[in-house]
Amino acid sequence: MADITASWKRLADRSPIVEFVDACLRGTSQVMLQNNPVTGLVILIAIAVGAFDSGHPRLLGGAVVGVAVGTATAILLRADRDSLRSGLYGFSPLLTGIGVLLFLRGSAMVWLYVVFGAAATTLVTFALSNVMKTWGAPAFTFPFVLTTWALLMGAYQLVRLHVKTSTPPGLPGHGGAEAAYLSGDTPLGMLEGVAQVYLIGSWISGVIMLVGLAINSLRVALFAVIGTVVAALIAIWFRAGATDVETGLWSFNAVLTAIALGAVLFKPSVPAVIYALFGIVATVFIQAMLATVLAPYGIPTLTAPFVFATWLFVIAKENFTPIPQHKSYRGGLMAPLKPDVGSNR
Amino acid sequence: MADITASWKRLADRSPIVEFVDACLRGTSQVMLQNNPVTGLVILIAIAVGAFDSGHPRLLGGAVVGVAVGTATAILLRADRDSLRSGLYGFSPLLTGIGVLLFLRGSAMVWLYVVFGAAATTLVTFALSNVMKTWGAPAFTFPFVLTTWALLMGAYQLVRLHVKTSTPPGLPGHGGAEAAYLSGDTPLGMLEGVAQVYLIGSWISGVIMLVGLAINSLRVALFAVIGTVVAALIAIWFRAGATDVETGLWSFNAVLTAIALGAVLFKPSVPAVIYALFGIVATVFIQAMLATVLAPYGIPTLTAPFVFATWLFVIAKENFTPIPQHKSYRGGLMAPLKPDVGSNR
Amino acid sequence: MADITASWKRLADRSPIVEFVDACLRGTSQVMLQNNPVTGLVILIAIAVGAFDSGHPRLLGGAVVGVAVGTATAILLRADRDSLRSGLYGFSPLLTGIGVLLFLRGSAMVWLYVVFGAAATTLVTFALSNVMKTWGAPAFTFPFVLTTWALLMGAYQLVRLHVKTSTPPGLPGHGGAEAAYLSGDTPLGMLEGVAQVYLIGSWISGVIMLVGLAINSLRVALFAVIGTVVAALIAIWFRAGATDVETGLWSFNAVLTAIALGAVLFKPSVPAVIYALFGIVATVFIQAMLATVLAPYGIPTLTAPFVFATWLFVIAKENFTPIPQHKSYRGGLMAPLKPDVGSNR
Repeated sequence: MADITASWKRLADRSPIVEFVDACLRGTSQVMLQNNPVTGLVILIAIAVGAFDSGHPRLLGGAVVGVAVGTATAILLRADRDSLRSGLYGFSPLLTGIGVLLFLRGSAMVWLYVVFGAAATTLVTFALSNVMKTWGAPAFTFPFVLTTWALLMGAYQLVRLHVKTSTPPGLPGHGGAEAAYLSGDTPLGMLEGVAQVYLIGSWISGVIMLVGLAINSLRVALFAVIGTVVAALIAIWFRAGATDVETGLWSFNAVLTAIALGAVLFKPSVPAVIYALFGIVATVFIQAMLATVLAPYGIPTLTAPFVFATWLFVIAKENFTPIPQHKSYRGGLMAPLKPDVGSNR
Repeated sequence: MADITASWKRLADRSPIVEFVDACLRGTSQVMLQNNPVTGLVILIAIAVGAFDSGHPRLLGGAVVGVAVGTATAILLRADRDSLRSGLYGFSPLLTGIGVLLFLRGSAMVWLYVVFGAAATTLVTFALSNVMKTWGAPAFTFPFVLTTWALLMGAYQLVRLHVKTSTPPGLPGHGGAEAAYLSGDTPLGMLEGVAQVYLIGSWISGVIMLVGLAINSLRVALFAVIGTVVAALIAIWFRAGATDVETGLWSFNAVLTAIALGAVLFKPSVPAVIYALFGIVATVFIQAMLATVLAPYGIPTLTAPFVFATWLFVIAKENFTPIPQHKSYRGGLMAPLKPDVGSNR
Repeated sequence: MADITASWKRLADRSPIVEFVDACLRGTSQVMLQNNPVTGLVILIAIAVGAFDSGHPRLLGGAVVGVAVGTATAILLRADRDSLRSGLYGFSPLLTGIGVLLFLRGSAMVWLYVVFGAAATTLVTFALSNVMKTWGAPAFTFPFVLTTWALLMGAYQLVRLHVKTSTPPGLPGHGGAEAAYLSGDTPLGMLEGVAQVYLIGSWISGVIMLVGLAINSLRVALFAVIGTVVAALIAIWFRAGATDVETGLWSFNAVLTAIALGAVLFKPSVPAVIYALFGIVATVFIQAMLATVLAPYGIPTLTAPFVFATWLFVIAKENFTPIPQHKSYRGGLMAPLKPDVGSNR
């Protein structure tokens, strides 16, 4: 395995085409905050399985076109090579590619929107990265969220575009209590929650993705499971919509938060685990809030709850030291804050 | 008096418990931008009076649990000791504690939300302080606003939580002109406006709080009165809802703006007074705007109008000098702006 | 011509009144990102023509009062002289002056709001400039947008104020496809789009404004035309509302984006032209999104689509070099980004 990896790296160094493919595969894994082409490949297989399984094979095309166009746009705009090779300009456009195909009613034209949306997502990645750098936080998947929200909301004004989301625009109101809860589908919904990170509704895809994550890091796969299980339990406890729990829609944001806070951004420690659990709880409540905020527009929260929760937990512990990138925060989670951070009144 | 104060300080230096109580009392006064345990104690008494008077005694419990949990969370997260002792991590959670009890329908469970909400508010305080530090502005009470908005909006999606706000979600529309205006209740409403800073609907509490403020600074108490009177008059002139004027709901944000701009952040001067008056007017209009923005969600503006108005007036005069904390802005209000501040086109 | 210009400059250096008039004329041209008193004078004539032509002569008064009060407020608040003389504190208040008269139902009182709104706009300009400076971007016309939005939304809560916008508050929904498209009025609508930058609905004013721009820079006039034509064609292609296309409402934001990205902020080059064209497309979609976001409040997008699009395209290429002011970005559009800009995960 290590042998193959080394050969692949040498190939990527010599051939621009292999380098590009490598960047796209890493980009596929970067949605889950990983930087591993094998993990990316396994996840792409999971997307393919889920796309065909759910009768929407073109979602796989959206993913591939998205990550490729996004990465190519970044090359055209002269992004730095290190980030490019790590797939950091591909992961948000990949999600935009799937999102556009999933939420906009299709014709041949829809592929034009995929290309345009993916290119725009890269531009938003540039701008948002500059903005968030101020507080030492990455943009995460928010460029995907912003671009897709814009396309879906814009579609109401443009007769040529048609949105197909599950709920029409309406004022928020208390949903009625649903009777059946904690059915046999709940555990499958938790697995589906992993795949919903990529907008794929299939628990089999979720299992394959967990395998892909485990190839890169057992810790990451473990926290993905913790994220989806804990979030689903909280959603059930507070009685969120049962159908959404069973299709993983209350879980996928917490999968990302759990990976980010529990396995990627902070050094492993008991406080870090508690911090990550608190982050998962916060993600569920932020998702509930955003669902209400977006109700009048009839569009989904996408991965915004993960982004807001993780920004909150990262910036709260940010000491304006150089930006940590996929590394542990210097000094760990429990290092005291600098005096000037708190004296804010 | 000075003797007692000195003894108290010595006690606080030696005993961690007294230190904690001191921090919580100072935190109670920090909502009004004061740093004085006696003022905090008097305000706590005012909250108690108002809570029992209005038939909601547990609001006092919410305040105490809120400020204690918020401060304790900051200790656990290793905040700096100076800010901790000044009560800077207690005042927003105190308001969250009251707000949760006031706006969420209760059972024993609701106390869990108070604890969770207070802890989350401290985390938001950390993050938002880091963000606002970029422009030399404190977070003020916005962590309370954000956390409470999130809990209230999230409640629409979670059957277990029930919101009880005065107005259900609806599209904004012009309210009908109300006949009776400037009744005998208006002056009492202005006093109630001082207490509404702590979400307490009692003019007696307002009077006690003014006494508490006067103990620390006559200037502060004076500007609190100016804030509530001027804001109520503007609201009456533009014919905002009469009931809201008479219960102080158009006043409490201006109380805070008047204290911040008129008595705390800038050196006393005639231009500073004019600036503060302009700030009070702006607070009323920002509150009207926010009431419209939040109408589709049926939730209150809380202290957001104060925060936005004060951010506006502080950042407008901010020269990117070191952050002033409860001190006068270097050079005073009328110091010329640096050339590069304005040339923004 | 050059002779007159030189004499005028000497006059402005000696007489404070001429200096003030010069600043106001330059401010009139700064809405279009120009700094030329003659261009400003021609545009003011265009506003006069359009105001009288459309039966709203007082819009001219709103423009004059707005730019004068805004500039005077900046002088009172001790803004730097260079920016003042370039008209950078006058252009947003000018638009607020027109906007208040156009969207609030009038009595003598409405002129008070014009004065208050213009002064508030200058304050917002100060604050927002400080905020956006962090990322090397100007505030553009956003102070006008924020202040006018606030006044219009606040008016729903205040019986004394009455909003008159074209669409009442409502949930977004797909508009029906309109039959007649690309009528003979479309080209006139494109010209009207230039004047709509100043909220003036007259194609003759648009022509005069183009002349005013051409006096200062042919390139700027050319990109204004490109902006209005391309945006209208995209709006037609995606079938936005035909009436809005024919009155220039889908064009005016793109006029500003085209001038900013194509003729002012970046060095002329083929990639810069492509970048500007992409910016025009983005402006149309951002406008569609914002129209949906604002639908529940029944207020117009104003120039927010231009501001958001241009911020996006400017901050995306911002390297945290010193802020460029009306000059070309150092190194041009295609200079490679610094490594740290992209590595945001």
